[in-house]
Amino acid sequence: MTVKVITVGEKILGTNNAKAEENKTRLARYGILTINIMSSPGAGKTSLILATIKHISQKARIAVIEGDVASSIDADKVNALGIPVVQINTAGGCHLDAFMVEKGLDNLPLEKIDLLFIENVGNLICPNNYLLGEDIKLMIASMPEGDDKPYKYPAMFADTDVVILNKVDLQPYLDFNEKAFRKAVTGLNPDVIILPVSCKTGAGMPAWFKWLEGALKAKKKG
Amino acid sequence: MTVKVITVGEKILGTNNAKAEENKTRLARYGILTINIMSSPGAGKTSLILATIKHISQKARIAVIEGDVASSIDADKVNALGIPVVQINTAGGCHLDAFMVEKGLDNLPLEKIDLLFIENVGNLICPNNYLLGEDIKLMIASMPEGDDKPYKYPAMFADTDVVILNKVDLQPYLDFNEKAFRKAVTGLNPDVIILPVSCKTGAGMPAWFKWLEGALKAKKKG
Repeated sequence: MTVKVITVGEKILGTNNAKAEENKTRLARYGILTINIMSSPGAGKTSLILATIKHISQKARIAVIEGDVASSIDADKVNALGIPVVQINTAGGCHLDAFMVEKGLDNLPLEKIDLLFIENVGNLICPNNYLLGEDIKLMIASMPEGDDKPYKYPAMFADTDVVILNKVDLQPYLDFNEKAFRKAVTGLNPDVIILPVSCKTGAGMPAWFKWLEGALKAKKKG
Repeated sequence: MTVKVITVGEKILGTNNAKAEENKTRLARYGILTINIMSSPGAGKTSLILATIKHISQKARIAVIEGDVASSIDADKVNALGIPVVQINTAGGCHLDAFMVEKGLDNLPLEKIDLLFIENVGNLICPNNYLLGEDIKLMIASMPEGDDKPYKYPAMFADTDVVILNKVDLQPYLDFNEKAFRKAVTGLNPDVIILPVSCKTGAGMPAWFKWLEGALKAKKKG
């Protein structure tokens, strides 16, 4: 028996991207490097942000916009480190958009920020369609999710600048083929940077910090 | 510093739920037990379906509707077991809807089916808003996603009949508090059935099979 495949229509974007350009101009005025962090639920967005704050906050002034359907669990964790943070609750919405981020920017001390992390809603589909004003799109893939995810959620993998492959500490207990994963990702996105890490154990994190410090320097130089 | 919380508006549903009622009536005519399976990407929807097919296909005639943004990887796996399957590709859409499922039903031998699994798109937010015609909503939470997910994606946990807690084989390597997870889930949904399993090792699966066989019997009795 052959498998029947039915393809249905795509959604239409609104005026989001014009607002994203406005945000980008506003952020550029302050020289802020802005990273839009996307992933499935529980892949490690907050863990990456927290680990990065601990490492880099002596070198760069960080702020965070947290996007969630509900709760302020993540923002509370960032706040506990003394970092300026705004929580955006989407009340059921499946992604941040540029208008929400504008509201976030209105509530942050932009003149005192070098690096802004925007933690998007946990979702491998919808966030990719909405520019926010970021310099860099970063997505986190979590090893327990499996190595076939680039085939099933291709748009996000195709469109990102950086893929953090998190939870590599679980590799011995998973059927995850990193070579197959890399092949799938680079097939969609030849220039992408893939960084395997464990936010839990710290494995691979120096390469991420080095990459980020380079991006911060490049931003300062304009 | 207190955390700033911004709440933005909700989406509006279309005529989906009327079509879902039509699907439900159509499925009831054939006495088909229909289960809508939802989860994050990579939590184990296909693994649960494949393991269940292997266990139960002597006792019940199974069919599957596979929903994905792209690819037919999952449908190919089901098809390899000789089970009728339709792949629906949403081309960027973040959930199945009742109209897509109707097209799936048009392509299945309904008179020869006792149990229909509908594997929704991997997403903990959008699928919950769209009834498909199912008897049972089932969601899979994967242990590596963390025990705080009920707080961050409350609508899906509040609205489901069954929560399968998958990948319990990884428990020794995770900071996952099952008691806290259960408390969070039952706080949102006091009557929910929570079944911890490992689709990989088979741990806990007998309880799921037993529950499913009970649901099949109840359906046959009408």
